[in-house]
Amino acid sequence: MKKFLLPLFTCLWTSTQAQETLGTPDLPNLVLIFMDDMGYGDLEVYGGYPQQTPHLTQLAANGMRFTNFYAAQAVCSASRAALLTGCYPNRLSISGALMPWSTVALNPTEETLASLVKKKGYKTGMIGKWHLGAKAPFLPTSYGFDSYFGLPYSNDMWPVGFDGKPITDTANRKFKFPPLYLLEGNEPVIPIQSLEDQAQLTGLYTERAVEFIERNKESPFFLYLAHSMPHVPIAVSEKYKNKSGAGLFGDLMLELDDSVGEVIRALEKNGLTEKTLVIFTSDNGPWLTFGNHAGSSGGLREGKGSAWEGGVRVPCIMSFPGVISAGTVSNNLAATMDILPTMAVLLGVPLPSQKIDGVNILPLLQQVADANPRDHFVYYYDANSLKAIRQGQWKLVFPHTSQTYQGTERGNNGFPGIYNSMQVSLALYNLSTDPGETFDVAQHYPAVVEALTALANEYRKTLGDDLTKQPGNEKRPSAKIN
Amino acid sequence: MKKFLLPLFTCLWTSTQAQETLGTPDLPNLVLIFMDDMGYGDLEVYGGYPQQTPHLTQLAANGMRFTNFYAAQAVCSASRAALLTGCYPNRLSISGALMPWSTVALNPTEETLASLVKKKGYKTGMIGKWHLGAKAPFLPTSYGFDSYFGLPYSNDMWPVGFDGKPITDTANRKFKFPPLYLLEGNEPVIPIQSLEDQAQLTGLYTERAVEFIERNKESPFFLYLAHSMPHVPIAVSEKYKNKSGAGLFGDLMLELDDSVGEVIRALEKNGLTEKTLVIFTSDNGPWLTFGNHAGSSGGLREGKGSAWEGGVRVPCIMSFPGVISAGTVSNNLAATMDILPTMAVLLGVPLPSQKIDGVNILPLLQQVADANPRDHFVYYYDANSLKAIRQGQWKLVFPHTSQTYQGTERGNNGFPGIYNSMQVSLALYNLSTDPGETFDVAQHYPAVVEALTALANEYRKTLGDDLTKQPGNEKRPSAKIN
Repeated sequence: MKKFLLPLFTCLWTSTQAQETLGTPDLPNLVLIFMDDMGYGDLEVYGGYPQQTPHLTQLAANGMRFTNFYAAQAVCSASRAALLTGCYPNRLSISGALMPWSTVALNPTEETLASLVKKKGYKTGMIGKWHLGAKAPFLPTSYGFDSYFGLPYSNDMWPVGFDGKPITDTANRKFKFPPLYLLEGNEPVIPIQSLEDQAQLTGLYTERAVEFIERNKESPFFLYLAHSMPHVPIAVSEKYKNKSGAGLFGDLMLELDDSVGEVIRALEKNGLTEKTLVIFTSDNGPWLTFGNHAGSSGGLREGKGSAWEGGVRVPCIMSFPGVISAGTVSNNLAATMDILPTMAVLLGVPLPSQKIDGVNILPLLQQVADANPRDHFVYYYDANSLKAIRQGQWKLVFPHTSQTYQGTERGNNGFPGIYNSMQVSLALYNLSTDPGETFDVAQHYPAVVEALTALANEYRKTLGDDLTKQPGNEKRPSAKIN
Repeated sequence: MKKFLLPLFTCLWTSTQAQETLGTPDLPNLVLIFMDDMGYGDLEVYGGYPQQTPHLTQLAANGMRFTNFYAAQAVCSASRAALLTGCYPNRLSISGALMPWSTVALNPTEETLASLVKKKGYKTGMIGKWHLGAKAPFLPTSYGFDSYFGLPYSNDMWPVGFDGKPITDTANRKFKFPPLYLLEGNEPVIPIQSLEDQAQLTGLYTERAVEFIERNKESPFFLYLAHSMPHVPIAVSEKYKNKSGAGLFGDLMLELDDSVGEVIRALEKNGLTEKTLVIFTSDNGPWLTFGNHAGSSGGLREGKGSAWEGGVRVPCIMSFPGVISAGTVSNNLAATMDILPTMAVLLGVPLPSQKIDGVNILPLLQQVADANPRDHFVYYYDANSLKAIRQGQWKLVFPHTSQTYQGTERGNNGFPGIYNSMQVSLALYNLSTDPGETFDVAQHYPAVVEALTALANEYRKTLGDDLTKQPGNEKRPSAKIN
């Protein structure tokens, strides 16, 4: 392990000063590959079986795999807001999954990962699912991205049924979804009307990602590739049909893994590998109600839509040759919110002027002895209620009502099952020995319960908790769409 | 991935012919490091947190990590019999954990991993816990090992209480245990009477392991290092006390990891790394009733003493530079029983003349495309009753009574809790998407249930099933101790 310690960082250094101290390349590229509803147990390198994801195994062999890495919330828009701003989403007054008709959007006054790197002249491109505002001017090019190609929200927000057929019944709740289009900038360019159209998404995004790299190879760049898959409705292009022997979901994993492979090859081909930080992660856990069209939380409890580990702990692999040693694993806490401040340090640019929640995790990447930059993580869900808090191996879950997949019949072949709900009592879990959250040890560790409750109360004061009717005094408004 | 296919192997080749075809070193050394009650979630590289096991992380970075690797049964003697013979333990009429007064032992007529490699002139040494016969001639030197130093059975089989104090109360069931000694060959040499004595075991074993490597560096060798820890009572030497910040169990993991580091350094120092297959694994899952003195099954269901995944799926890392690519992961099924036939292929020696259950997993180590040598795995437990069967991602659990840690109060600080038992109904789990065995999908896949039931019935005929009163017509007798 590298033993040198980083100095506490002030924000005024130039990038050159930063690189001299950090031992990192000057103005590294960032390629951020973001999956939709991919679970903790979906990759081979996380024990996924019989999935075939050799490029991601190779990425992990070349870099670092995280085992305690969190999306900020177990649902789409909230998670993406956090990724791009370094903030808990309720700080930004964003929650849940925005609908095409939602009247809120990520506030364009927030500094994003894209606007941050623009300060150093980066070329910035977004390809794929946005989901932080349904129409212009609340689309990516208003948030620091030079270019955008993708779906403005989830691929199931369309007037097509679970059987893949257009909805004609006006009583069907899916009837009110507007037609779904791929956007180029702010303009609708390609209609997505059938499962066959959906099957082209992964390939189209990949093609655009490779083009972006080719076009910007001379300049530092930030590529945000946010795949629409494996969110339902899942579909694969012709080349991958029945190729995995593991069903349609397995075929899709093969296609998504190949997409990662193509992006990495484009970096290699252009000699960019050494100066590029590649990050692969997911927005939340698997949407288990879709049965064989959903992934796996890999033994973690529950999935998307809950504050249990299966909902928010996600696979994360980072590669950055020369900075990250090959084949390493980090078991420290880290979160998507930490990417923005880490990039700020790498670039030597100031943090956003407004408060953020992310921390610089470069010491984890560099395996600085005893580094543990993320002391704790707070699990918000549902209109911003505080469900749980984790510090080190301890997770304290507060009483609440939780959606559950237990005791339900799950759907199959694209159709959803039905949710149950459960009453959750106060419980303390030792995630070190009990990652499945099965065994409440609160009675044995009253001091831990007390300390974590006090820490959670600080968050209730500043970021609120609907369950305790605390509004939170540090929340900022989202943008309103007319 | 390496794409060439191995020919189907006949048993009469010389080792030179074998190496030419296999691309493996001539007569490689084997270092087999076997842990006691270490769980699937105890290593950093398996997501263990806040454990510190950097040498094992490095071993995985240099070699291959297995995510679906099984001990043959979730209890000590049965598991060890399988490891050394390549057989399900009930084929050998060995079950459970033998007691110091047991009148059965592994039959010396069985060919072991040690007697197999002796055919090629290997030096063979065993250090640590034996547990396949309590006294001479049923000790390691009767089973192909040139030398032996260690405890003849578990370190808790002694007349000392859970508080670490000698038992004087004749009514205490621990009173009848004979005094515990470390053996040199067949002779008792060092008494183990206190927790302080237990604390020396890991260091003593490690020292002997390094000596064995130094002494035999010129000859091909097989070193079987079977640690007594982290089986309870756990204890660490002075150097590691309070060093992990993760309690006594964390301190112990640090010491055990350092032991692995010392063994690897001894190989490196003597230029043996390239021609040594190192295998690190465990005899069964964590003994969860011991609470903070037990490890973790890493999100798998239950632990030691059951046929749930937490009982039998164990960490396994193999390193073999030149044969195994660095930083690789295998998610295929494999088992401790597969080590013996794999060594037979590597050495070009015939398989044992009596039937075994292991398969050659060299194609997994070499990442031969589509290789899947272990088609299925059968979960026997308790006097050899057949509890479950796995094929690919499917695990069919048969109705039985299972010990459970659920709904129990676990012990702490060396004291055990109390077990519960539960009635288990027929259930089918998709371990690919549901590794925690929480969601029975039997009704959706009747053909899978039927096929796995038929496969299990073949095992009932040949290896028996106490629950169905089938004795099994292929069982061989264990040895009787007078």
